[in-house]
Parts: sequence; C-alpha cells; structure tokens
Amino acid sequence: MNPAISREEVEKIVRKVVLERLGPSVKAPAVPLAVHASARHMHLCKADLEKLFGPGHELTVDRPLYQPGNYAAKEMVTLVGPRSRLISNLRVLGPLRDRSQIELAFTDIISLGIENVPVRLSGDIDGTPGCLVMGPKGVVELKEGVIRAAIHVHMSPADAEFYGVKHKDLMKLRVGGAAGITFDRVHVRVDPTVLLNVHMDTDEANACGLHLAKEFELTK
Amino acid sequence: MNPAISREEVEKIVRKVVLERLGPSVKAPAVPLAVHASARHMHLCKADLEKLFGPGHELTVDRPLYQPGNYAAKEMVTLVGPRSRLISNLRVLGPLRDRSQIELAFTDIISLGIENVPVRLSGDIDGTPGCLVMGPKGVVELKEGVIRAAIHVHMSPADAEFYGVKHKDLMKLRVGGAAGITFDRVHVRVDPTVLLNVHMDTDEANACGLHLAKEFELTK
Repeated sequence: MNPAISREEVEKIVRKVVLERLGPSVKAPAVPLAVHASARHMHLCKADLEKLFGPGHELTVDRPLYQPGNYAAKEMVTLVGPRSRLISNLRVLGPLRDRSQIELAFTDIISLGIENVPVRLSGDIDGTPGCLVMGPKGVVELKEGVIRAAIHVHMSPADAEFYGVKHKDLMKLRVGGAAGITFDRVHVRVDPTVLLNVHMDTDEANACGLHLAKEFELTK
Repeated sequence: MNPAISREEVEKIVRKVVLERLGPSVKAPAVPLAVHASARHMHLCKADLEKLFGPGHELTVDRPLYQPGNYAAKEMVTLVGPRSRLISNLRVLGPLRDRSQIELAFTDIISLGIENVPVRLSGDIDGTPGCLVMGPKGVVELKEGVIRAAIHVHMSPADAEFYGVKHKDLMKLRVGGAAGITFDRVHVRVDPTVLLNVHMDTDEANACGLHLAKEFELTK
C-alpha cells in the first residue's frame, strides 16, 4: 500500500481550490482546444524563394492550414545534410516570412546528420545551424535557420484570459491514453488572429500516440 | 498574477509529507537511474531464427546491452509492410524468447504502414498485428507480435521498496530541459536480476530530447 497522499487526491484538491479562486467569471474558450502535429517544413523569405524557384516566383496554395492565413504551399525543397544525406519533398509553408527557417523533428535532424540543433520558438533562429537547400531552379546555402520547434499553443487574448496566462508563459499539456505524456513546457503565443491550437512536432505526436489520443488537458 | 496555488508549492508540500511518512529507513537505489532509448528491434524464437538464418543457426553477440544477459546480436532482418514498404537492417536482440516479437516506434510503424499497432509491454502480444520478416535464408510470416513498446522501468525488489512501488505499478518520469516532458505511464517491471533502468523508444527519446537531457525524476 502507498503510505503517501496519492497524486489523484492532490490534483482533486488543487483543482477545487483553483476553480474556487478563479470564480464564476471564467468563460470557455471561443473554440475547443485543437492539438495538431506539424510535420517538418520550411518557411521562405522572398529572396530565397526566388533563388530556389526562379525570379518572380510566387507561392501557390496547396491547402489552407488550421490557422487563418497560413497554408501548405505546392512548393517543395530538398535538404542536403553535412554527409550528403537528404530529406526530399520538404513542404514549404506560406505566407512568406522575413527570414527563411527550417523546422525539423529530432528524428529528421538525426537522419540528416545536422549537429547542435536547438529547441526554439519559430522566428528565434539567431546562432542556429544552417543547411543546404535545393529547389528546382537553384540552391540556397542557409547560414542559419534550422530548429526543432518548441511545442507551443496559439491563443487569442480571450483564451489567454480564460487560462490566466500571457504571451510567452509556459503551460502544461497532458495527453491521456496508453502512452500518456505531459508536455511540461508548452509556450504560449497570444495573437488576436489565431484559433486555440497546440502545435507539436511529429516526434512529440508519435511519442504520445496523438493519432490515438482522445484526452487533452491544458493547464498552467 | 496566478491566483491559485502553484504546482511547485503543491509538489513541495507533497514531497515533504511523503518523505515524513516514508521515514528514515529509505536508502538510495543500488545504482543510479539510467534512462535509455531502445531503437526498433526484434526478438526471435528458436523456430523463427532457424527459418530466417538456417537450421541450427545460433545468435552471435554483437555487443552486450546494459541489462545483464541481454545483447544486440549481429543478426539483422528486413521487415516488409503491407504496401511493400521496407525497414532494413532491423537488429535482433538476444537471448532467444518463447515467441518472436517486433518492437517499433510509431514513426517506424507509420513508415511501414502497419495499422492498429497497440502500445504494449514486451511479451504481451496476443491479438497484435503481424508482419512479413525476411532473413538471409528464409522468410517468416509473423501472425502477430508487432508492438509499440510501452515505456517501462526495470528495477530490483530493493529499488521497488525504495520507490514504494510493486511490479506492474505505473510511475512518472519527468525529463527536464528545453523539451521537458513527463511520461505519465511508466510501467514498473520488478526483477532481481536487473539494473535500475528506464527504457523508452526513439519517438519518446526524440520528443524529450533525451540526447540533451540531464535531469530525470522518477516518482510515483
């Protein structure tokens, strides 16, 4: 027999106290929490787009993504690792950005053989490793921009109020099921244009069996 | 400001109560906790070994594993998925078992295209999908045995006493770092011959950045 207080007992007490303190003013989020896996992908700046796909080329929408304004483009590139190992058919996501960036899972990073890739938020790429990128019309020697994206949750200011968090806070996401996992460092990204949505990478999705999971709990 | 009790406060209180109740008789585990990633692999029964590698064939040790008596064999096989997709050079682990079994990460399972693979403990393979296995001397049509291994911790009875758990209990493993994750369902396997050792698969290892992680906490 366990002589100590069980985790369930503690959690029940904490939940009760939290709900009492938060009071009846709390409303539900505008949309239900969506938890999605982001497969490896690349964002391009205009200069790199034109080097890879030709002068004047513009991205073409393949399919819209869950977040308004974002889309998977028809354009794809090939990454060449330091020992000539390849990742082909890497999807470009639109719209264009100020700086090119490659988001890979550690599984991809290990298979490509790039070293010292950090876990970073999108856009925070100073000092990260680069990569050789091949397109149908040319090659870009990216000096930096390869990251393993940190798990994050997009939310509106109203959602942030609901959860009692602010931009850049960390939250926890518990995913239930046979491979139950709690992601302890889910970065909060507050923006008025977004839908409530956790983005994890394919390693994280496969670790928690996201394709089988039905139970999600996002907490401070 | 967070109006509720912080998680850290709660954990501090719980830890204090637990330590008080467990009292001063608790000793440290015999060996420090080792956390290892198990890459995809196969266990073979004698009949399947002989079908794949020829009559009378015996496994040869390539390198010993951390757990006494276990080893990576020199022998490797190829898996053929339902749409003829392959995983080559799948390592066989020794010693032989009563039943053949294939342990894959979900990343491998998705790439092979096998459906309905459950998260199971090693040995618990009734009703799991099968797979076509090719060796240098023959082929085995495995009727069942493909699993995604559940994360588990091997420990001695003394370690189990230290942690206050028993065989088949579930524990939590918190892995710190930029991709901090808590594995909420770590299965306890008590055996007098083993060293204290968590086994996770490569998806789980890559999700938590195990190759970068320095902080591990195993708790009930």
